Amino acid sequence: MDSSFSASEVARVANFRAALRAFLRKSERNARQSGLTPQRYLLLLMIKGTPDGSEQSTVTELSERLQLAQSTVTELVRRAEEAGLVEREQSALDGRVAHLRLTAEGDRRLMKAFTTNEQERQELRSAIAHIED
Amino acid sequence: MDSSFSASEVARVANFRAALRAFLRKSERNARQSGLTPQRYLLLLMIKGTPDGSEQSTVTELSERLQLAQSTVTELVRRAEEAGLVEREQSALDGRVAHLRLTAEGDRRLMKAFTTNEQERQELRSAIAHIED
Repeated sequence: MDSSFSASEVARVANFRAALRAFLRKSERNARQSGLTPQRYLLLLMIKGTPDGSEQSTVTELSERLQLAQSTVTELVRRAEEAGLVEREQSALDGRVAHLRLTAEGDRRLMKAFTTNEQERQELRSAIAHIED
Repeated sequence: MDSSFSASEVARVANFRAALRAFLRKSERNARQSGLTPQRYLLLLMIKGTPDGSEQSTVTELSERLQLAQSTVTELVRRAEEAGLVEREQSALDGRVAHLRLTAEGDRRLMKAFTTNEQERQELRSAIAHIED
């Protein structure tokens, strides 16, 4: 791999990482203002936003998408269940697998943060487009 | 603000956040493999990648771009100096301001991680472009 990057290439990447830091920080603030820790916001987002449109997920799938150990996700899910934000249903096909979905309260808090975040997402898109120019 | 987002909109954002988690995790791994903590990688990147092309920065500028308190950045810089990765020069115009720049060793480690990260950046670009379709 060629390691000769120009100063403007390094500056472009630095700008991207600065925009990303700002995005993540605002997203964390919006999650907290909606009654969710940043990690729990991501958990609920991944449960609802499944690629297949089913709006339910398993610990194994969440572990992959959140880049967290299964034991960590299991604990996150357990606490979200206790807080009344997530509920589980045993799979009819395989009793060892539980499908997770949001409760009405989980959905309400997720979508509150998600809606506020739309502005941050637009700012990030605009920053990335500018950097790519 | 309209809070009626479609299921596919939520799934699109969940995919973006999953791609972002994967990118950040790989970037952290690449930093460590180049002898830098993830936070120190970002510090060196912001010092070198200044928007004005000077390749030097102040604590105040870094604080803004890293979204960290000035006291945190001061401590990060102090430890990077001790590790021989960053050096400072008092401003000729204002003796209270120090301009920070990378040492040869700081530059070497930064560019090693930066170069490896190019593949992760391309993957993230591709994931974002796919999500935006």
